[in-house]
Amino acid sequence: MAKNIDISAQWAGGMGMLKKAIETTRTRGFWNAFVEIPNPKAYGENALEAGKEQFESLLNATLDIQGQSSNGSLIGDEVSPFGMSLDVKYPAIDVRDLVGASNAARKQWAQLENDDRFIVCLKMLEKLNEKSVCLAHAVMHTTGQAFGMAFQAGGPHAQERALEALAYAYQATSALPPEVTWEKPMGKHPSLVMGKQYKIKPRGIALTIGCSTFPTWNSYPGMFASLATGNSLIVKPHPQAILPLAISILEMREVLNEAGLDPNLVQLAVDKPGSEITKELAQLPDVRIIDYTGSDVFGDWLQANAPQAELYMEKAGVNSIVITGTDDFSGMCQNIAMSLCLYSGQMCTAPQNIFIPENGIDADDGHKSFDEVANSLKEAVHGLLSKPERAAAVMGAICSGATEKRIQDCAAQGEALLPSTEMTTQDGQTLRTPLIMFGDKKNQSLWKDEQFGPISFVIKCSDAESAIDEAAALAHAKGAITASFYGTETNLEEAAIDKLAGAGALLSCNLTGQILVNQTAAYSDFHVSGANPAGNASLA
Amino acid sequence: MAKNIDISAQWAGGMGMLKKAIETTRTRGFWNAFVEIPNPKAYGENALEAGKEQFESLLNATLDIQGQSSNGSLIGDEVSPFGMSLDVKYPAIDVRDLVGASNAARKQWAQLENDDRFIVCLKMLEKLNEKSVCLAHAVMHTTGQAFGMAFQAGGPHAQERALEALAYAYQATSALPPEVTWEKPMGKHPSLVMGKQYKIKPRGIALTIGCSTFPTWNSYPGMFASLATGNSLIVKPHPQAILPLAISILEMREVLNEAGLDPNLVQLAVDKPGSEITKELAQLPDVRIIDYTGSDVFGDWLQANAPQAELYMEKAGVNSIVITGTDDFSGMCQNIAMSLCLYSGQMCTAPQNIFIPENGIDADDGHKSFDEVANSLKEAVHGLLSKPERAAAVMGAICSGATEKRIQDCAAQGEALLPSTEMTTQDGQTLRTPLIMFGDKKNQSLWKDEQFGPISFVIKCSDAESAIDEAAALAHAKGAITASFYGTETNLEEAAIDKLAGAGALLSCNLTGQILVNQTAAYSDFHVSGANPAGNASLA
Repeated sequence: MAKNIDISAQWAGGMGMLKKAIETTRTRGFWNAFVEIPNPKAYGENALEAGKEQFESLLNATLDIQGQSSNGSLIGDEVSPFGMSLDVKYPAIDVRDLVGASNAARKQWAQLENDDRFIVCLKMLEKLNEKSVCLAHAVMHTTGQAFGMAFQAGGPHAQERALEALAYAYQATSALPPEVTWEKPMGKHPSLVMGKQYKIKPRGIALTIGCSTFPTWNSYPGMFASLATGNSLIVKPHPQAILPLAISILEMREVLNEAGLDPNLVQLAVDKPGSEITKELAQLPDVRIIDYTGSDVFGDWLQANAPQAELYMEKAGVNSIVITGTDDFSGMCQNIAMSLCLYSGQMCTAPQNIFIPENGIDADDGHKSFDEVANSLKEAVHGLLSKPERAAAVMGAICSGATEKRIQDCAAQGEALLPSTEMTTQDGQTLRTPLIMFGDKKNQSLWKDEQFGPISFVIKCSDAESAIDEAAALAHAKGAITASFYGTETNLEEAAIDKLAGAGALLSCNLTGQILVNQTAAYSDFHVSGANPAGNASLA
Repeated sequence: MAKNIDISAQWAGGMGMLKKAIETTRTRGFWNAFVEIPNPKAYGENALEAGKEQFESLLNATLDIQGQSSNGSLIGDEVSPFGMSLDVKYPAIDVRDLVGASNAARKQWAQLENDDRFIVCLKMLEKLNEKSVCLAHAVMHTTGQAFGMAFQAGGPHAQERALEALAYAYQATSALPPEVTWEKPMGKHPSLVMGKQYKIKPRGIALTIGCSTFPTWNSYPGMFASLATGNSLIVKPHPQAILPLAISILEMREVLNEAGLDPNLVQLAVDKPGSEITKELAQLPDVRIIDYTGSDVFGDWLQANAPQAELYMEKAGVNSIVITGTDDFSGMCQNIAMSLCLYSGQMCTAPQNIFIPENGIDADDGHKSFDEVANSLKEAVHGLLSKPERAAAVMGAICSGATEKRIQDCAAQGEALLPSTEMTTQDGQTLRTPLIMFGDKKNQSLWKDEQFGPISFVIKCSDAESAIDEAAALAHAKGAITASFYGTETNLEEAAIDKLAGAGALLSCNLTGQILVNQTAAYSDFHVSGANPAGNASLA
């Protein structure tokens, strides 16, 4: 087939990176392909300024996606959780046109050599990495993440997860030889001989449904896994977080253009609240893969109404911390405080419920009553947020009005350990501090469900075993992506591994210092296990 | 945990066989672990007599499954398609008891070392292989397969497919190290270090729903894949083909007993027409995997009504042969005749529609008109069935009354190329020869759907290209497991590969001699691609 360039000859450099990624999915040690801080050595001397300018040049304008069709109307009213209206308009496309262009583009793509598809995807990652600062601003001003986190999670870490997906996809697609001679001995008779060929058949169109809090981090793995295995891509971002995925798609299409491939292999589909096209897209017969991150309600709808598609989804969950003891009490409190405050708890991995035995725990500096543990957690959060600038860098902004309202609703039901307050930074940004409630029988309808945002509950349990059991039961019933355990007794740690990891949560034990239960390391950790209601697949 | 024997020390011999199987799934050449004919060298001097006696000792009796609970009632009225009533009774179990016992047995099983689980499964295969002659008789007298085929497909080939499933399962479950130290360098600061452990979490109960024509061949792969990955097993055979799976389960439970493991890890669930328990089983929350072979109607029901389970299914399909030319006309006709007659077409891989250009084809011995091709196919079938004993060995018996009726119904709609007739063998067995109809617009409602059994259609097409297109369109619309192409022109063969293999059918080109399109070689061929409506997963 005709290509503009010899892909494997000119771009093959990325394959070394892919091989290293594959190796790391097996050893599962630490490795990063992309530098996670925007230092000049990795990203260039003026990267920070240049990236900010790139971002600003996109505002108050119509995004031009050359070669993608449009029905003439424009969509888009993203407003930054930090206040500014982005005023970016995106061309709307009729669903029929999206599907036609997607099917047409896939024909050529599916016929490429397998390695060439991966080389193109690796080139896309290279381009996305160069765009990381611009992407960080777009992520920041659609999700409310502080810049540092938006850069890391929205840029290099998201790219790392895409590379991890490519590593798995390559292992799957290169498992078969392209052809073989099959020869069956027949005793005295001549052997039976057959020449066999194996071909990889893509499923069709892969639909990615983006979320509002981690538009790139949650979407890239599915996007790249589907693309590398020969499928064509339609990406439908959350109406409040279009820009990060739109920028990504522009970069990906540019690489396709450069390679002489049809850029409509990767298309952006936008809609607006009230006239969503997601259901229509999801039910198209040609849509054979759906990647989804979001609410239980829509996830369940997809499961029931899009049976033609392979569905990979992440839904809600209730993550728990179980405290039964520690040999570093203050380290524990600081670590948990950071977990509660980071991005105002707007992470699918953030802890919500903290189970503590009613008789308290033994710690390195003596016995602590239930109240002492609770109060120390409160003080640790206080301390962390004592300086408004640091607080702003940790918490970012609240992404949606629904989360604001949820904080009020939860505060109204029961007793607060730490009320949520407003805090104003020097540059006039209004922050909302985390709410920590006491969880008990009366407000159990709250804490036994996901309360997304900076909302957590400390819950008194009869003893350490029942703390583990309650957390595990919730993970089984409502799903959980992470779990965290603190304790010094071997039998309790074994019970936690058995029951909490056994409930399909990614379990961390005795975290202190800089590693948070909220974080998932590419190539090493599994983000969502598929083994409880928080999702049906592992997404890393 | 307590075990009777040191599994890895005493039974580790099977691991060599597993390694060879894994290697062959990668090279995809020919290899068999189990000897496919019942010769004395492989199976012992008196294997044929002993196996027959084992089978006969089970008849007219109640099957005793020690340690499996029972509600006291007995179920079973299997009748051999060759006439004899088996009169085997099976203990019925309440669904609640099945689930309780399954969950209890899984706890211990899931905690075994991964290798130990595989070693136990390999031991089960060894035992099943020793039982092959007995299993062959059970398969023969439940499905109607002739003895030779029942032995091969029901015994060693089914075991081979189970081993293939174990090979894939082992690759999946041994991909992760059990633990790793993750160390992230932090520049001038000390590295962040985490010790990580990875555990394999089984899904829960795996339900296998057996079919009436290949009870072991179609069920073993899913059974062994689920078992080896730590799940517990409930096997619900077709009411007319219980015995082969019951014998298999007895053997598997004996191995579990020997190893000191809970035999209820593998349970038999029987029911009778009119009071089926399959729907109740399929919807149990603890049933998290379903393997199903059978009708579209029930497959669609499962897909819609058992969303809690991962569903692996094989449904109906319409397999086609496209004839555009050949350099071995008589070899082609003989090969196709065998494909049509083998086990009276009661194979999900058997061809149904034969597309031929209206202007005929070029062959090694000159041009052949459409009628000449059709008549030569008819004569080849005639020739193959000319001797009743050989006919009996090829065709076996018709498995169900529904198939008998289908032959009548199809014969009544249109013109027959070869009517189906009755034929009596020397030992008084009544055979039914294949029906070959002309397929046209008038009876297209028949040939555009699956007509399971010894029923095929020769269909006139405007030219070679449209023959390929019609076959491909049917595969897309109705599913197809296999496709067969005959032709000498490169561009037509490329079109066939593009369109027929592209429709997700296992395509064979220019088959003559002993290899039939009906056959699927373990480790090398894929049985069902998951890429068309004939199934949602590859089952080999």
